[in-house]
Amino acid sequence: MASEEKTLPTTSRSAVLQKVFDLEVKETPIKKMEPTDVMIKIMAVGICGSDVHYYDTGRIGNFILDAPLIMGHESAGQIVAVGNEVQDFKVGDRVAIEPGIPCGKCEYCRTGRYNLCPDMEFMATPPVDGDLTQYITYPADFVYPIPDDMSYEVGSLSEPFSVSVHAAQLMDIQPGKTVFISGAGPVGLLSILAAKAFNAGDIIISDAEESRLDMAKEFGAAHTIDVTKKDVKEEVKSFTNGEGVDYVMEASGNNGAESDALLTLKPGGKIAYIGMPAQDTTPLDITFMTTNEPQIFGVFRYANTYPLAIEILHGQMELANRLLTDFYSLDEVTDAFERTRTGKSDSLKTIIYPNEKLRDE
Amino acid sequence: MASEEKTLPTTSRSAVLQKVFDLEVKETPIKKMEPTDVMIKIMAVGICGSDVHYYDTGRIGNFILDAPLIMGHESAGQIVAVGNEVQDFKVGDRVAIEPGIPCGKCEYCRTGRYNLCPDMEFMATPPVDGDLTQYITYPADFVYPIPDDMSYEVGSLSEPFSVSVHAAQLMDIQPGKTVFISGAGPVGLLSILAAKAFNAGDIIISDAEESRLDMAKEFGAAHTIDVTKKDVKEEVKSFTNGEGVDYVMEASGNNGAESDALLTLKPGGKIAYIGMPAQDTTPLDITFMTTNEPQIFGVFRYANTYPLAIEILHGQMELANRLLTDFYSLDEVTDAFERTRTGKSDSLKTIIYPNEKLRDE
Amino acid sequence: MASEEKTLPTTSRSAVLQKVFDLEVKETPIKKMEPTDVMIKIMAVGICGSDVHYYDTGRIGNFILDAPLIMGHESAGQIVAVGNEVQDFKVGDRVAIEPGIPCGKCEYCRTGRYNLCPDMEFMATPPVDGDLTQYITYPADFVYPIPDDMSYEVGSLSEPFSVSVHAAQLMDIQPGKTVFISGAGPVGLLSILAAKAFNAGDIIISDAEESRLDMAKEFGAAHTIDVTKKDVKEEVKSFTNGEGVDYVMEASGNNGAESDALLTLKPGGKIAYIGMPAQDTTPLDITFMTTNEPQIFGVFRYANTYPLAIEILHGQMELANRLLTDFYSLDEVTDAFERTRTGKSDSLKTIIYPNEKLRDE
Amino acid sequence: MASEEKTLPTTSRSAVLQKVFDLEVKETPIKKMEPTDVMIKIMAVGICGSDVHYYDTGRIGNFILDAPLIMGHESAGQIVAVGNEVQDFKVGDRVAIEPGIPCGKCEYCRTGRYNLCPDMEFMATPPVDGDLTQYITYPADFVYPIPDDMSYEVGSLSEPFSVSVHAAQLMDIQPGKTVFISGAGPVGLLSILAAKAFNAGDIIISDAEESRLDMAKEFGAAHTIDVTKKDVKEEVKSFTNGEGVDYVMEASGNNGAESDALLTLKPGGKIAYIGMPAQDTTPLDITFMTTNEPQIFGVFRYANTYPLAIEILHGQMELANRLLTDFYSLDEVTDAFERTRTGKSDSLKTIIYPNEKLRDE
Repeated sequence: MASEEKTLPTTSRSAVLQKVFDLEVKETPIKKMEPTDVMIKIMAVGICGSDVHYYDTGRIGNFILDAPLIMGHESAGQIVAVGNEVQDFKVGDRVAIEPGIPCGKCEYCRTGRYNLCPDMEFMATPPVDGDLTQYITYPADFVYPIPDDMSYEVGSLSEPFSVSVHAAQLMDIQPGKTVFISGAGPVGLLSILAAKAFNAGDIIISDAEESRLDMAKEFGAAHTIDVTKKDVKEEVKSFTNGEGVDYVMEASGNNGAESDALLTLKPGGKIAYIGMPAQDTTPLDITFMTTNEPQIFGVFRYANTYPLAIEILHGQMELANRLLTDFYSLDEVTDAFERTRTGKSDSLKTIIYPNEKLRDE
Repeated sequence: MASEEKTLPTTSRSAVLQKVFDLEVKETPIKKMEPTDVMIKIMAVGICGSDVHYYDTGRIGNFILDAPLIMGHESAGQIVAVGNEVQDFKVGDRVAIEPGIPCGKCEYCRTGRYNLCPDMEFMATPPVDGDLTQYITYPADFVYPIPDDMSYEVGSLSEPFSVSVHAAQLMDIQPGKTVFISGAGPVGLLSILAAKAFNAGDIIISDAEESRLDMAKEFGAAHTIDVTKKDVKEEVKSFTNGEGVDYVMEASGNNGAESDALLTLKPGGKIAYIGMPAQDTTPLDITFMTTNEPQIFGVFRYANTYPLAIEILHGQMELANRLLTDFYSLDEVTDAFERTRTGKSDSLKTIIYPNEKLRDE
Repeated sequence: MASEEKTLPTTSRSAVLQKVFDLEVKETPIKKMEPTDVMIKIMAVGICGSDVHYYDTGRIGNFILDAPLIMGHESAGQIVAVGNEVQDFKVGDRVAIEPGIPCGKCEYCRTGRYNLCPDMEFMATPPVDGDLTQYITYPADFVYPIPDDMSYEVGSLSEPFSVSVHAAQLMDIQPGKTVFISGAGPVGLLSILAAKAFNAGDIIISDAEESRLDMAKEFGAAHTIDVTKKDVKEEVKSFTNGEGVDYVMEASGNNGAESDALLTLKPGGKIAYIGMPAQDTTPLDITFMTTNEPQIFGVFRYANTYPLAIEILHGQMELANRLLTDFYSLDEVTDAFERTRTGKSDSLKTIIYPNEKLRDE
Repeated sequence: MASEEKTLPTTSRSAVLQKVFDLEVKETPIKKMEPTDVMIKIMAVGICGSDVHYYDTGRIGNFILDAPLIMGHESAGQIVAVGNEVQDFKVGDRVAIEPGIPCGKCEYCRTGRYNLCPDMEFMATPPVDGDLTQYITYPADFVYPIPDDMSYEVGSLSEPFSVSVHAAQLMDIQPGKTVFISGAGPVGLLSILAAKAFNAGDIIISDAEESRLDMAKEFGAAHTIDVTKKDVKEEVKSFTNGEGVDYVMEASGNNGAESDALLTLKPGGKIAYIGMPAQDTTPLDITFMTTNEPQIFGVFRYANTYPLAIEILHGQMELANRLLTDFYSLDEVTDAFERTRTGKSDSLKTIIYPNEKLRDE
């Protein structure tokens, strides 16, 4: 390992979720570097709905918070040390971090669907610590360079954006085809960018907040639907000459929206369920399925998306930047989580700076 | 047209659904032959759940019985006349009939998904008459030869079997993979034959009737689940070493079964909804979708399946024959429909003979 | 049919290839309109390599010119009459014409690959007449509207462009991936537009003419290769960090280029052979295939491409316009064919006007 | 590690290719076991064409024999020791060995195409030693159980059979479709078993040796072609009513056969080049490609095939056994290679026993 290692930190200040509603900033040990690892100074971390879920309920599905856990998994940073066997990086490189490390050996890993690996170690998912911390060591294989002109904050968006890209890849969105995006929060807005990257035709989007629909238009939506005033199915049909859309990306996680979204498809269309639902179970119309032959894709995280996600974001930095609305230092972590948890319509993505604060508003 | 045409019938005795619960046998006109048509003497017609649906409720989805309609769409027969431009058939040929004629010109027809054609003319679907009648004229392009050693009754099974074959093709079932079939009625049992034709590995099947599960074993199921005694999800998991199955074919149309069937999949697995549901809407687990990434296929009829369906049935005639349980003459049509409607567990597929009765039990 | 039909022309001046090197402009009968036909005044016809092939050799593969044949199949025009059953068009509509009519009934038509229909009637392919003529009647199902701001000349490009779009669809080009296009003639340049429409990453292109490579840069190529000075395989490898490209579109028809193009692929890459070869047979490296596992796609015309092709061209009209280099009246048809046949590097696409000449240079 | 490790061998008698035509049996060191390794007593090793290629020419493509190399990569054996972290195996288990270990981290590995991994360590490919030796240590992840009733010799066939299975998977062979297999050597005969496992319809096969064609019939070929007497293309067309076949598996490696095989396809058909060619380059008909739109798949080894390959072989053990024709002890290795190299038509697969000889003829 390079000589600068001698002065590498061995502990790091981290945002640790002790228990429900109890976030503390504590000094935690940094994992020892392997020859294939890099050490990264974390420069920006986005707060995700799943982080908040652990914060206010202590669990997601079968994953239960039963010991203190470092939060955070949407991040970008700068490399401060490089293991002996690492060839693709050098100290000073600016990078985004893919927060899940699959086993590499199971049936899923070997067939290219490593997001389904049962032994996946995914950040901020008990018992695997996240990277809302000053420094981490990490396998270089899951670290990706970001361009010099891309901010760390936008770089950290490569994580949530990867989910949208993965959904577009699963459905194999074709040029010129119509897309309805259900929900205009951060995931829905990023899904606009994904659909555009696959050169989709007209994009329709729905939400209950006018301000988000306005932003969706700036992102490139051809038509917006205020669900508090209009019927989604009727509006989509009307905008598509009664046909329905080729693709749907359900990004709201609202159960009613999940039921409705399926019905906006034209015969043979495809829908991806991306948003984590409020309630596990949603009524879906099986008669619609057995008479219209849609294909429905569950979407779980992503695989093999980072280089493409970064490349697309690089071409859309101005829009991506508009998703960043709230900025906190590490010591303000509880405020940041509360802001995300009680988020008003003017809040989209909250960023925390584990090291120096780079931006104030 | 050939000389025998001179003596061709111009009317035919038909089973006409006048209104709900009112089936009458009446003389109806036979459509004039086009040069690309054949005339077929219908030798055997199977009764389908959808026929019974019109019989006892007068509607399926948006299709409403508002005028008398000839029933029947699962059929085989013998060619009695051949149009001038027909090259592939001659008088005396034994054939199965694909009961839907698509427009051939729309987006769906041109891209190979003609089952989704909005202008499809499908038999016994208002206002298109079916073929529970002595003679029909029909486009030769949707008529298929059946082997000499295949009975007309088994030939008529090529229609419901096509749905199972189509489901297997949509999911692209791969050799050696596990399949769970939900429901062991005619469609479920035919789905066993479809899964075997794609050389699936172990096949698991569920039903509430022991007698059907026994028959499923004879059809080749490796494991059966009595849903009145066992939990489907637990049983499937247990039989697959806790993993779940690669594919599910939902053939019961039971809403509870539809909800459960999804949960028997391994991560990344595929499920086809084949059975028409009792209630349109069924609760499906979206959290399961967004953490296990299944692919869900609605199945609507079939396209491009007949030659393969007939070939597979030809290799499985003994088993196919076991699906045929009840046999009626045309004059007994109301008895036949009542038998199907109130069907006990010992009844699978009811056959009606519009012409001479070929079989008694 | 509408009243204006009364005054519809019954004959039309046409460019007829009498025999090799003998083109004559003659009055020919116009086919009687069917209720599903439209009559089109042909406004612009592009000359294709295949037209010239019949002109100077009298055959392409198994198709032999053994009777006079009207040339032309790349065309756009204006509707002058509409059959009774036509709903989507009215007199005055500006349209592009898909020059092949498949049977709609065979295995290929029913499975969505109608370009492979053995009974395809394709214009200017013996014995089917082309549309280098003033007026044609044609099935409305194979006629497509073009936008008001798209010239007829650019509209006629939808035919050759469809081949490039089809190639991109066969290979399923994914966003961000590298593409090498072999040959920068009209097909190669249109292939740039196709690759860009699928949002490909860097595009590399080769040719023997500097002027065409210059134009390729304007079309969006990231790197050009002058094959008279450089080795294609080495240049592509060098530009891709030694890896090779994800996709190749072979658009030159040059046998040496066809052999080389395969070798520029990275392992697992895909190549489409689009260009008609000078000699049927080309040496291809089977050892490369059995150690690098490429997928090779033969490309024959197109299916289901017109609406997308027109939409893409509409977004690229300025570049598309640059492909149009030579303009002739119908009476100058022999000059036009000679210009294409002996085409210098400054000539790309030649347009003939069967009616009024719209443009001079 | 288990206690029996104390007595594990540290050296092993191996067949080492010193230089061209110089095979020596020598004591070589056994690699130290890692916690994720197993130690295997090699019970049967098949000789492959590539082994013989190194033996008589010293190279394959870019791989050059420039140091002594242990031969062998088609093998089965018995586990004699198990690393601490290995869970799926115990001492005494009978296994087949997948002879290539990919890096698990590169683009190809992560997307499921690990056979294309540039850092693949593949046995008997310089500089990676093979397993024509008494004992090896090997990662348990690339070892697969074989059934108790499967001989080690048949177990070793899972390696060459994997190539045929991979070819069938790449082409996605569908039930009932026709397959032409070019060449009836071991790979061609195994390709019959692969095509049957995908439930192909009629299988046609060609060879220059009548005895091999006779065996092909016993394997299930519907039609055989003696290439010394008949034209392959005409025979295939004739047997398929002039249409050509849906799939071709080229397994001969004969350049003339490679050229011809493409031309036996029906429009839109698929061909897999499996056999290593005698000469790298073969003339292929590009005009055929650009008018018939075939898809051509290069096949390089395999990925994710072993469990399925073993399962299929288990159902075909009697036929698989017929491929085994010659049996040698380790000390007879030169005789074994010479037998394979100069193989007469009565010789298919040669087996060498590194430990006790299990079979004599």
